[in-house]
Amino acid sequence: MKIRRSNRLVDITRYLLEHPHKLVSLKSFSEQYGAAKSSISEDLSIVKRTMAEFGLGKVDTVPGASGGAFFAPRYSKENAEKVVGELVTLVDDPSRLLPGGYVYLSDLLGRPEILREVGQLIATQYIDADVDVIMTVETKGIPLAQAVAMYLNKPFVIVRNSSHITEGSTVSVNYVSGSSKRIKKMELSRRTLKEGANVVIIDDFLKGGGTMKGMQSLIKEFDAHLVGMNVFAEGQFEGERLVSGCTSLIKVTTEEGPNDYLKAEPGNFLTRVFTEGEN
Amino acid sequence: MKIRRSNRLVDITRYLLEHPHKLVSLKSFSEQYGAAKSSISEDLSIVKRTMAEFGLGKVDTVPGASGGAFFAPRYSKENAEKVVGELVTLVDDPSRLLPGGYVYLSDLLGRPEILREVGQLIATQYIDADVDVIMTVETKGIPLAQAVAMYLNKPFVIVRNSSHITEGSTVSVNYVSGSSKRIKKMELSRRTLKEGANVVIIDDFLKGGGTMKGMQSLIKEFDAHLVGMNVFAEGQFEGERLVSGCTSLIKVTTEEGPNDYLKAEPGNFLTRVFTEGEN
Repeated sequence: MKIRRSNRLVDITRYLLEHPHKLVSLKSFSEQYGAAKSSISEDLSIVKRTMAEFGLGKVDTVPGASGGAFFAPRYSKENAEKVVGELVTLVDDPSRLLPGGYVYLSDLLGRPEILREVGQLIATQYIDADVDVIMTVETKGIPLAQAVAMYLNKPFVIVRNSSHITEGSTVSVNYVSGSSKRIKKMELSRRTLKEGANVVIIDDFLKGGGTMKGMQSLIKEFDAHLVGMNVFAEGQFEGERLVSGCTSLIKVTTEEGPNDYLKAEPGNFLTRVFTEGEN
Repeated sequence: MKIRRSNRLVDITRYLLEHPHKLVSLKSFSEQYGAAKSSISEDLSIVKRTMAEFGLGKVDTVPGASGGAFFAPRYSKENAEKVVGELVTLVDDPSRLLPGGYVYLSDLLGRPEILREVGQLIATQYIDADVDVIMTVETKGIPLAQAVAMYLNKPFVIVRNSSHITEGSTVSVNYVSGSSKRIKKMELSRRTLKEGANVVIIDDFLKGGGTMKGMQSLIKEFDAHLVGMNVFAEGQFEGERLVSGCTSLIKVTTEEGPNDYLKAEPGNFLTRVFTEGEN
């Protein structure tokens, strides 16, 4: 097959989408397709304009000998509002209420189309941040952390609740579960997090913030830095949370009683990430 | 922006990659871009030829009023051999040996570029199979199950080791851990798996097969069907495994002693999935 512009556009688009945030040199594309750098440059302009037009992300070009181009997923405000609206509709269902004010979300966190949208949404928040690694705690935060990691193209690490033989040596911290007030232990394999790493924490649900605070302690133990915290859903909590500054996609208010009550609404994500007038 | 063919090619490629195995009607593309169906049809031919040429998957068109096109990721034999070779090189490192013949893999299973390749690789095996859901057991199987689910565009469910309040009502089974011979319990939320569902099991590591057999029992309890089983790595095991027919990407042989020994080699995946002469 002779590789024409049309074929190059398809494969360049595929490559950039599969390798977000990775700088690719014009030279490597040029060699791959047997095309002049000037042609590749025009291809990239077309991809850039298309992604911008559809509100999906930016293609940035870095000039110079070691330069090239990379794609960074970034939802427009319009797309972000659409996704948050969908999530609110999906969660706003009293049959999701579980004892203790918890909310059943496992079905949503196992659906690829939702994880893709949520991953791109949260990645938008960190598009210009210096992130080295995504951290989550087992079990239900994992799919979200992985989805965000895919779109930031950074590794994710899983904090475990107890010692597992297949992790090797670990660092552990105690933390107070904000909801149950019980003292628990969480730990992370020593090999997985480097000193000085910039960490984004992702979890499924925020109540008292005890688990979040535990992960913050672990980050300190590893001499790493916290860049930000994000949860899928924020529940109600009486009193002061153990952490502040966490971003939530949706907010859920519940009441157990003769008539179970559950109301979902947008969390603070949209107002935090999109300042007024921005799109 | 006037939407030209070049812009359509970029966005159609993006859409198909983000929605694998999903049939999209020519009509919806036609309306989205304000282009004639005949033009969309030509666009799809270009995408199809490009994906085939680079060994990345097939674009199939379904004729008729309810027809359309879909993209199914499928690695060529050449790409599959390359990925398995990379995995062997990454794992073939004695410092990965852990006590009890276990192998440290958590770093690899947290790297997006590896999960993308492994997801496409395993999805290739089930390209023409009727799969409804991917099943795994917490914790280390989750990233792999999610990666496969993303490329098959099917939901995944997580079997838990003990009861968790946020799962609602569950079905549980006992199983014998093949390595430790201890009896354990695993359970799955009742809401997550439908009767008659076709299930693919994904896990990180196979030794005695006890965990796999436990998941098979769960599938029976839900009156669902097992389509196939796949692990990232197969370890050595003396005696007969509790399950047969599981596919492995790599095989690891280890020996603990004064000089730790670890050898990685390709598992049975390539010979199982690519019959002779096929590419």
